[in-house]
Formats: sequence, C-alpha cells, structure tokens
Amino acid sequence: MDYDIFELGDIRLQSGSTLPDARLAYQTYGTLDADGTNAIVYPTWYSGQHYDNEWLIGAGMALDPSRYFIIIPNMLGNGLSSSPSNTPPPHDRARFPHVTMYDNVQAQHRLVTERFGIQRLELVTGWSMGAGQTYQWAVSYPDVVRRILPFCGAAKTSVHNIVFLEGVKAALTADPAWRNGWYDEQPTTALRAMSRVYAGWGFCQQFYREKTYEREPLGYGSLEDFLVGFWERLFINRDVNNLLAMLWTWQHADLGRTPGFADVQEALASIRARSIVMPAQQDLYFPPEDNEWEVRHMPRAELRVIPGAWGHFAGGGLNPVDTAFIDAALKELLAAEP
Amino acid sequence: MDYDIFELGDIRLQSGSTLPDARLAYQTYGTLDADGTNAIVYPTWYSGQHYDNEWLIGAGMALDPSRYFIIIPNMLGNGLSSSPSNTPPPHDRARFPHVTMYDNVQAQHRLVTERFGIQRLELVTGWSMGAGQTYQWAVSYPDVVRRILPFCGAAKTSVHNIVFLEGVKAALTADPAWRNGWYDEQPTTALRAMSRVYAGWGFCQQFYREKTYEREPLGYGSLEDFLVGFWERLFINRDVNNLLAMLWTWQHADLGRTPGFADVQEALASIRARSIVMPAQQDLYFPPEDNEWEVRHMPRAELRVIPGAWGHFAGGGLNPVDTAFIDAALKELLAAEP
Repeated sequence: MDYDIFELGDIRLQSGSTLPDARLAYQTYGTLDADGTNAIVYPTWYSGQHYDNEWLIGAGMALDPSRYFIIIPNMLGNGLSSSPSNTPPPHDRARFPHVTMYDNVQAQHRLVTERFGIQRLELVTGWSMGAGQTYQWAVSYPDVVRRILPFCGAAKTSVHNIVFLEGVKAALTADPAWRNGWYDEQPTTALRAMSRVYAGWGFCQQFYREKTYEREPLGYGSLEDFLVGFWERLFINRDVNNLLAMLWTWQHADLGRTPGFADVQEALASIRARSIVMPAQQDLYFPPEDNEWEVRHMPRAELRVIPGAWGHFAGGGLNPVDTAFIDAALKELLAAEP
Repeated sequence: MDYDIFELGDIRLQSGSTLPDARLAYQTYGTLDADGTNAIVYPTWYSGQHYDNEWLIGAGMALDPSRYFIIIPNMLGNGLSSSPSNTPPPHDRARFPHVTMYDNVQAQHRLVTERFGIQRLELVTGWSMGAGQTYQWAVSYPDVVRRILPFCGAAKTSVHNIVFLEGVKAALTADPAWRNGWYDEQPTTALRAMSRVYAGWGFCQQFYREKTYEREPLGYGSLEDFLVGFWERLFINRDVNNLLAMLWTWQHADLGRTPGFADVQEALASIRARSIVMPAQQDLYFPPEDNEWEVRHMPRAELRVIPGAWGHFAGGGLNPVDTAFIDAALKELLAAEP
C-alpha cells in the first residue's frame, strides 16, 4: 500500500448521520519543516485518487517536494478513504451516508493538525471537486489557509452542473444490475454508459472539432478509440456506489451551507486567503462566468482564465501547455505575500 | 387521423437496404395556388411530429396558410412515417434499416412532385434535424428550392454532437428491458434516463443559472418539476427503437455524402438557394461556429444568430421572443428575390 490511513474514529456528518470508524487515506510528498511552515493541501476530484493528482508535483514545479510538504487527502467516497465500497455493514454500499464538502474538509483538518501538528497552510489547491474543497478550506479555516488556487471548480454547484450530473446519475442507475446499490458484481453497463455521457461534457466543442484526441499528447486512432481508451478506461474500474456518493457530494456542494453563513456570497466574502481563481475558457460545466461572479465577492481574488480548447480537462494534467499555465500561476501565488 | 399518408412503395435506401411499402406521413396547411408557386416544405426534428412544428404557422406569420401551402413531412423513424414501431416484420424494430437525411429528402421530393405536382418550393425551413433536411433539399434539388432557412442545425453533424448523442444512446441502451430492440413493452427506464441526459444539452448554462424554467412562459415550480414535466414528458411516450433510428440518422448526417459530391464543402458550395442560416447563440450542440464555417462556403448565405439564453430550444417554439426573431427572418427571406 503506497499511502497512509488516518483513523478518524466515529464522525458526525453535516447531515446528522454518523460514519463509524471513518478513515482518511492520504499520501505526502516532501518533508515538513521543523517549524511546520511549508505545508500544502491538494484534495482530489470526482473519482480521482491521490495518484491522479501527482502530475502537478515535481522537481522544478511550484509543488516541489524538495521545498514543500504536500498532502493529498483522498475525498470521502473515492474508494481509498471511507467509501460505500470499503465501509463495513451496516453503513456499506447504498447505506453510506451523504457527505458534504464541509465534512471532507473537517476530516482533512484533523489529519493536518492532529497527525502533523500543522497550524498554517501555505496553499490549498485542487481541480474540479478538489477546487470545491479548496474554497471550503479557506472558509472553514481562515486562520490556517494563506493562499488558495481553485481551478476548474466552483464554490457552489450551478443548476446547469446539477443537470449535467442528473444525466450521469441516470446512466449509472438505468442498469438494473445496479440493484439500487446492492450489487455483488460491478454493474459495468452502467459504468460504460456514464463514461459516454461524460465524454461530451469533459472536453468542449472545439476540442472535438479539431480532433485533438487524435493528436499528441493524446494520440488516439479514432473517436471510438478515444471513447473506449480514454473515457471508459477512466471509470470502468470505479465502483458505482462510490461514484454515486461523490456525485451527491458534488450536486450538493454549496459553500453557503458552511455553519455560520447565510449564503455562498457571504461565505466568499469571508475568505482572507490570497486567491487566484482559475477556470478553463471553454469548460462546459464550470464555465468562467460562474467564477467571475465569485471573484467579485472575494476580497483578495484574481480571476485568471486558462486559455485554449481543452474544456474542463485543461485542469486534468493531460496537456503540457495547460499544466505549465497552472504551474506558473501557482509559482506566482506562492512567491507572493499571503 | 389528422394527417395523410403518401405510399412510397418499396424504396431503396442509400445504404443499399430496401424498405418495403414505405409510407410518408404528412400534413398540409393552406391551399396550393393554381400555378403551384406558393409551396413551403418544413420537415420535422428529432422525435418531433408535424404537430410539434405548428407553432411557426399562423395568420399574420411568415408561414401564413392564407398565403402559402405548407407541407410538413414527418421524418422517417418518427413514429408516423415508416418507423421501427410501425413497420411489419421482417423490417420492424431492431431490423429497421438505416435511413439518411438524403433518403428522407428523396421521399419528400416524391411527395411534393408526385402527389402535388409541385416543381418549385418558395422555401424549405426546419429546426435541428429539420435544418439538416433543409440543407439536403437545397443540394439534392437546386432547381426546385428557391430559399432556405435552416435554424439550429448543421449540414454535417459535428464530432462533438456525435459524442453528445453517444451519451443519449448509452442511456437508451443501458436498460436491459430494451432487449436489443426486441421489447414488447416500452423500456421506460431508458426513456427517463435519456431525458435527463438530454436536459443539460437542450438548454444552456445561462438558462439554468437564471432559472428561466421557473419563469413565464415555462413556469415550472422547481428544477425537478422541469426535469419531469418538460424533459421526461418530451420523450416518455416515444418508442426507443424509433429514437435510436433517428439518432443513427442524426449521427450520420453529412451533406457531403450526397451522390455526386466529394465532401460537405463542395455540397455547400453548390447551394443556389438564397439562404439565411440561423444558429442560436448558446446552442451547446449546434454552436454558431459550425454554421459560420458553412456560410463561408455557401454562395448566397447570411449568418444570423438568434440572441439570448435559450440554447438549442431557441428554435423549439417555446419562447415568444425567439419565435418572433425567427418569424421576422422568414418574412424577410420570403419577401426577397430568390
């Protein structure tokens, strides 16, 4: 096992449900300074695990393990942290309780403070649902978080994004092999169907118009090759209940539900961290317009759009040009006074 | 039965398959002039039937039945014309042959000439797949068609549009009650799933951001009310094999496959009809960029974008503002020298 587990014990979730013996899987990169002032938290995205975040970490990059201590906490429901697929009865599978962004960050804060004794984070950053957790860190722990760079995500899931996810959910649950979550074998028709539903959303019209999937760095031989080799591969080994659990978290993401705040606007206004908010120009479900609105309500935030035609996956680490753009912004933010 | 049937007899399709005793269902509005010079053809869209086109016809509108003779031919596969659901064995259900845009227009031309003796069409217009048939008319019958106004459609289905439809198809076929097309009862889980997949595509981000579905003229009570009351209602009484047949037609739509042409560019260049090509500004699967490219290759075409935030459904007849915009362009086009 190339990762560690932090035992949370029984945790009370925002919904009122109790998740017994909850576990947070995480991986770290680099070494924590003696004074604990070089820590970064970098949460995971929908279905992603810490492995899938590592493209943004490396020597010479902003997230350089020779300089920073980088913690990747796996999101609850992602198959490594407590999830429908690995929780013992009675809270297994279809009974896994609903988890919010807030719950995830509460658990991550315990990892950061209780296991590592860290009182200050130089940066929190993340892609997509990882961006959602990034905003949440800044609101839940304003005295801890000095800088944030959420990319291709939002503080509150938009109605259109909720509808996109309704389509994903409908595909996942149309396969009766799903058995309302009580399957013994993975309902693979569901996984393949949701992969195809996702394919039109993850990249944009221009990406497909220019057949970018056939060119380097992707280099698929045809559209069908891409649909199977990229999209079905992305989800085929996931667990359907896990995907549905994370989908619930995503659809219900709302920074405004943080205890003590009236709405998302008030929560955004409370963020004290220096912020670069980074949408991708042609992201179909986290469009820049939603981030523009957010930044107007954040006291210390800059909007910086990732240009180009990779849509949401501009933040997925596949395109070196986009990766360089994100990395440059991270370097600039880390170099700036918090 | 409030429509008529034109018996096509056995027809040979572009694929080489023969559809025996093919039937074209159609409805007409107004009276044909003695000299046959006031005819308009207005084909149907994906899953739509002639009833669903009638919003664009009326006294005082461009398509005024007191002035024009308007023919709405139902697309093959739509449940009224020959379709998987109404064709006797052995060509029924999963054995219904593949039909192209070209095949549809060949059949419609026979209706227009053989039944009505019409040699000249003042206008062909249509929404979405109806727009696809509109382009096809202008290319297949340049001596017949004087003007075209395709709205929210394309001469060739884009790769991204094909991918969107892969998601719809995956949702339709994930339900094993579909039984590869050999069902006896309609697989309704499939129909509800595809409705939810479609919902994010039919309207755009801004439409949902502003909760336009809650306001007049729609006036739904909530997002869920809209998803069930509008989207599931749109498809729940359709036939899955019919939807899959039309989906094949849509995915394979390519004006460039018209016999005698090398590609879509050459086919577009051959259009002699005066044309207004009318995309909707925020259409997610027929984006204006694709029409811009087309118009550059059409000798007598103007691009005129429907403004606003109704996405693809700007052309669906639901929003009076968009309907007035389309109607005004139709009036202008009909008044102009062909």
